[in-house]
Amino acid sequence: MFRETLEKMANNCDGAIATLVMGFDGIPVESVIKDESVDVHTVSTEFSFVLTQVRKAAEILEVGLLDEVSIRSENLTFVVRVLTEEYFLGMALSPQGNFGKGRFLMRLALPELRAELSGA
Amino acid sequence: MFRETLEKMANNCDGAIATLVMGFDGIPVESVIKDESVDVHTVSTEFSFVLTQVRKAAEILEVGLLDEVSIRSENLTFVVRVLTEEYFLGMALSPQGNFGKGRFLMRLALPELRAELSGA
Repeated sequence: MFRETLEKMANNCDGAIATLVMGFDGIPVESVIKDESVDVHTVSTEFSFVLTQVRKAAEILEVGLLDEVSIRSENLTFVVRVLTEEYFLGMALSPQGNFGKGRFLMRLALPELRAELSGA
Repeated sequence: MFRETLEKMANNCDGAIATLVMGFDGIPVESVIKDESVDVHTVSTEFSFVLTQVRKAAEILEVGLLDEVSIRSENLTFVVRVLTEEYFLGMALSPQGNFGKGRFLMRLALPELRAELSGA
């Protein structure tokens, strides 16, 4: 469950460090980590709290449901797609990683991951 | 100051709603608003607080300086490039707007805006 989809994404994107499904509470459901030098769980958990605040801001501003967030820093890019009210799909990439391809692969995986989360 | 650069960006990107230079304290320095139906200043101010938290998270996680953040919701896309310790460049786009072109134009404008902010 989830693992195969996450592996496919991580393996098909240059510079992907990790892919994961995580709750907005910061608890990972499943993760595929390709580069152990980055503490992906800590990074994701920390950003999950930020995401919760972005969601709240979007709600206050009435700009509709949050769909995607990407954060690029000097040493790491982190892309998030909201899966459901409670879970998101995350991908961590190196700064030289293929950001566009990563986003594309994440978009492709959404229906499958959502179906799995709903128990379909 | 700033205005010409912000106007060029807003005019050359399909679906651009606004471009602005804003302090991380949520106070706008200069803005160009193409679609008055969106309260861009409120949106930007609200997201500036979120950005401050993203910066703090990046600092804690030691992933280097924050460079770019993009937030896509159902009705609005908001892209940010960090200009200096205190200011950022923001672009608001409609969901159908040209996200890639917007990011490209923002990247091109960085040196000019940074020079203006440093009083060069």
